[in-house]
Amino acid sequence: MNIYDIAKEAGVSPSTVSRVLNNRDNVKKGTREKVLQVIEGKAYKPNLLARSLSVGVSRNIAFLAPDIENPFFSKILHGISDCAIEKDYNVFMFGTDENTEREHKILENLKPEMMMGLIITPVSERDENTVEWLKRFEQQGIPIVLVDRDIRGCKFDGVFSNDEESACEAVECLIEEGHKKIGVITGPETSKPGHDRCAGYKRALKKHNIEINENYIVRGGFKEEGAYRAMKALMEQKEPPTAVFSCNNMTTLGCLRYMQEKGMKLTRDISMVCFDEIKELEYTDIHLTSVARPIYEMGYEAMHILEKRYEDKEKRGSDRYIIRRHIVNPYLVKRGSEKYLQF
Amino acid sequence: MNIYDIAKEAGVSPSTVSRVLNNRDNVKKGTREKVLQVIEGKAYKPNLLARSLSVGVSRNIAFLAPDIENPFFSKILHGISDCAIEKDYNVFMFGTDENTEREHKILENLKPEMMMGLIITPVSERDENTVEWLKRFEQQGIPIVLVDRDIRGCKFDGVFSNDEESACEAVECLIEEGHKKIGVITGPETSKPGHDRCAGYKRALKKHNIEINENYIVRGGFKEEGAYRAMKALMEQKEPPTAVFSCNNMTTLGCLRYMQEKGMKLTRDISMVCFDEIKELEYTDIHLTSVARPIYEMGYEAMHILEKRYEDKEKRGSDRYIIRRHIVNPYLVKRGSEKYLQF
Repeated sequence: MNIYDIAKEAGVSPSTVSRVLNNRDNVKKGTREKVLQVIEGKAYKPNLLARSLSVGVSRNIAFLAPDIENPFFSKILHGISDCAIEKDYNVFMFGTDENTEREHKILENLKPEMMMGLIITPVSERDENTVEWLKRFEQQGIPIVLVDRDIRGCKFDGVFSNDEESACEAVECLIEEGHKKIGVITGPETSKPGHDRCAGYKRALKKHNIEINENYIVRGGFKEEGAYRAMKALMEQKEPPTAVFSCNNMTTLGCLRYMQEKGMKLTRDISMVCFDEIKELEYTDIHLTSVARPIYEMGYEAMHILEKRYEDKEKRGSDRYIIRRHIVNPYLVKRGSEKYLQF
Repeated sequence: MNIYDIAKEAGVSPSTVSRVLNNRDNVKKGTREKVLQVIEGKAYKPNLLARSLSVGVSRNIAFLAPDIENPFFSKILHGISDCAIEKDYNVFMFGTDENTEREHKILENLKPEMMMGLIITPVSERDENTVEWLKRFEQQGIPIVLVDRDIRGCKFDGVFSNDEESACEAVECLIEEGHKKIGVITGPETSKPGHDRCAGYKRALKKHNIEINENYIVRGGFKEEGAYRAMKALMEQKEPPTAVFSCNNMTTLGCLRYMQEKGMKLTRDISMVCFDEIKELEYTDIHLTSVARPIYEMGYEAMHILEKRYEDKEKRGSDRYIIRRHIVNPYLVKRGSEKYLQF
């Protein structure tokens, strides 16, 4: 019985269970009691067995993320860590900075004795060098779980989200408001989410018989600075778009910076929908229609899959009986930024 | 010659040099050329020597941070990583979740063969168990550098900021606007910044002969949820304060959440000054007067100190000739949230 099972039985989220177990104070009294009842009823004994097993072994899990300043990956790491805690694992994170060379260097320095498993959001969906490293680790008994970004032609375990579908839905929400001139600021082409979100954008236009204008597709690289330049490039066109689809949270910040500099207001001068949310904006006057995802849960699930691999190994002698690939469905949260007062 | 020296000579920040070296696109053409000239002139050869030394050794630096979802620590990590890159080190981060038990468990699982150095923001300023672990690592040849939080009674190397002084200045800025009823939402008492910022608050009141009201001092624990409850406790008092000093960025988010729920507006219903900035708010209608710090540079400097230890060892046979403790001075950025329309 783990946090996940307790959550299911108590009818709460795994993060709530984690908060109760860690004695955090942001849990309602009734909820806390319900969780504790389930735990008592099931005689949940955290860590005792795991602790007895841990003598002499580094119970570490490595997580490689492409951008350490992006809160998306902090949230993923938080989910991974909360799931890891109950089996007494520690999780550490490396930042690869969207750079395959750095990724290779880190993989080269990661020795099997440092860790029991590796969770990675790879920079590229088709980097052969990285794939080779990952396969070598699996051969050395270090299981690999991908998170958020898949690798083309490989069947690693992983947790992904249905990005194309939800990007399409977000762009359709602009079309429904009457927009026909819609720009997109895309992520790195070599990353699967970068590719899929742009594909979703194109699919929405095609579905509504809007011609695709290549000038309206500008790369921002999932970074604020790149997105700022992309937004500038879009807005300085002879016929600038009336709406923009921003492909991730850092991209959105770049757009907002440009808009602030130029005094542009949402819905008055431009409409916008975004992939991934920016929590800090909740308390402000900027209300962005965004594709939301259960990010914490994606991290939690990735670690859960890793643990299943260890269980398989213990029970069956091998951890490669089942390939586990889980897909989460994002959902659109409408907040009004898709509207356009000039129509 | 390292990034730091190049930055000095080119008259730019170390982060700019790092961006040029990493071929990022957010550098002005003139600046880039200036940096490249300095590099060429000095025949800077990144990584070559370091690479030749690295055979067979895990060139990893561990960074233990108390809150992985706090962007402050992502920025510190970014500074550490950028400085580490030029000597070919990789940096990985563990989150201790403001919990000394977790901190001990992670330290226990960190083996000397996993890393060449340890940078840590300790949970507490006086935890004996942690101190023992850190001393043991130093004995095993793993240098320790503290960042942001000092440990009482120890002389570890470190990078800190002058929190009491700048907290005092922030609260004085409220007093100058006429505020006498000023609340403070504090951090964990066992952390040095938590203690010092509250001391700065008290010092400002004393300096201006304002009596300290213990009801106005409420603990938020440097976390959004705790701060939300603290703000509620402050505002539900018979005579609530007219201004609040928020002791860190997560605390500020908790305050803003409470204010949004109650429909409270800055300067109309409440004034506020904060320790540490929230970048995302720059593009919104919320303009907070805040104590700013060179956070990236603090991380960069911590790694720089670590490198100096290795140099000392190489040159002098020991790395404990000099204790390096660097202090940065924060500065107040006034944006208007200290004002109060009811005066």
